[in-house]
Amino acid sequence: MVNWPKRGMTRPESSRLRPRVAPTDLTKIDFTELVPDPVPFLGQAAYIQLEFFEGLARAVATAPTLPSKEGLSSAAGVALRKHHALIAELRRLGVEPDGVMAPFAPATDRFRQATAGADWYEQLLGIHVTSGMLDDYFSRLAAGLPADLGARVRVILAEEGAAAVLYSELLSAIAEHPGLSDRLALWGRSLVGDTLLIARSALKASDAADRLSGAVEPVFTELIASHTRRMDALGLTA
Amino acid sequence: MVNWPKRGMTRPESSRLRPRVAPTDLTKIDFTELVPDPVPFLGQAAYIQLEFFEGLARAVATAPTLPSKEGLSSAAGVALRKHHALIAELRRLGVEPDGVMAPFAPATDRFRQATAGADWYEQLLGIHVTSGMLDDYFSRLAAGLPADLGARVRVILAEEGAAAVLYSELLSAIAEHPGLSDRLALWGRSLVGDTLLIARSALKASDAADRLSGAVEPVFTELIASHTRRMDALGLTA
Repeated sequence: MVNWPKRGMTRPESSRLRPRVAPTDLTKIDFTELVPDPVPFLGQAAYIQLEFFEGLARAVATAPTLPSKEGLSSAAGVALRKHHALIAELRRLGVEPDGVMAPFAPATDRFRQATAGADWYEQLLGIHVTSGMLDDYFSRLAAGLPADLGARVRVILAEEGAAAVLYSELLSAIAEHPGLSDRLALWGRSLVGDTLLIARSALKASDAADRLSGAVEPVFTELIASHTRRMDALGLTA
Repeated sequence: MVNWPKRGMTRPESSRLRPRVAPTDLTKIDFTELVPDPVPFLGQAAYIQLEFFEGLARAVATAPTLPSKEGLSSAAGVALRKHHALIAELRRLGVEPDGVMAPFAPATDRFRQATAGADWYEQLLGIHVTSGMLDDYFSRLAAGLPADLGARVRVILAEEGAAAVLYSELLSAIAEHPGLSDRLALWGRSLVGDTLLIARSALKASDAADRLSGAVEPVFTELIASHTRRMDALGLTA
């Protein structure tokens, strides 16, 4: 089981990094059956990109150097494009985006506050970890959308954005400040629980999570595994 | 004479809204002769757009409603595109943008702080007034750049951005809050001095401003006149 709400979760045992049982044995329910309808999917995904944009824009404003500003502002531009492209998909469905996004605002705003971090470095890692996990997750969810829409959404979410610039900013910060890596390792770990809660909230039948955990578990296991790889690449223990 | 450094300047007399003497009589120096070299021009213009982006992004983050967020985030995207397009022009000239922008950072950062405002409405008017005046001003300056570059810069700066969305946000805010217009009128007036100082700092021979004031005065007079029209459109006394 994924430890949903606990902050500061400990390192997942290595056995969790691959499913103990092959997914087909676990359940007859396919993960894509849990994918929400297109309208709420797009509303939540669009609002999350807006949060990433706001976080990256704040990181631009507080960046210590002009090269950092430039890299981060490009990343902010990508998040903004994703937000507007997802909104455009809602309009294409004949839906006004504001009403669709509004229900997701309170939880997503709380999520942003919880993952904002105490300083610029924690803020960068917060965006790196949460956008890395959630862009990946929503791309997987898109497999359960109508085929045309799903394909367009995956193209939207696949645009290279924050990952490369955040990786290189964090890598040089860690190299420069000896004490930073321990603090960031702890911080990175504490981000996982909040991010998985947001991911779970996107599922159609999140109220029946127990029955469906067999379908969900492998996907979340893979999310955590790629989080671990992302942290490893920075030399941080996940 | 333009009242350079005074904050809270009073309404310009109506006679100032058109040059008292035809520009050709005033001076033999053409305004475009005061235009800086392409590299510092692009560096300052690019950094100013970055400030507009940061201001608009902050306005997105603090916007009270989702429709406001959407409009302002589009405007932030436009400012960011202008910033990146001007930076691309620097690279086309074989120059690294960071070193070129850096000298403009302290004065522009102070300018942003001075024009940030005490609340969301003052912040919006701050961006509306300063970006309205400076986009216009840098487009005029571009007439003194080499023809190709000047034409491209005018296209970059002409992209419709913040003006329409800020206008409509401010107009509805003023209609909704009866006391707001007096406060915003005062605030709008106090922005002009700081903005003209930034504009003057862009000129090549700003240290010899007296000798050149004949060439500069008509341009600044027109900037103030269009500021007055912008404020009038909001029902605010300039």
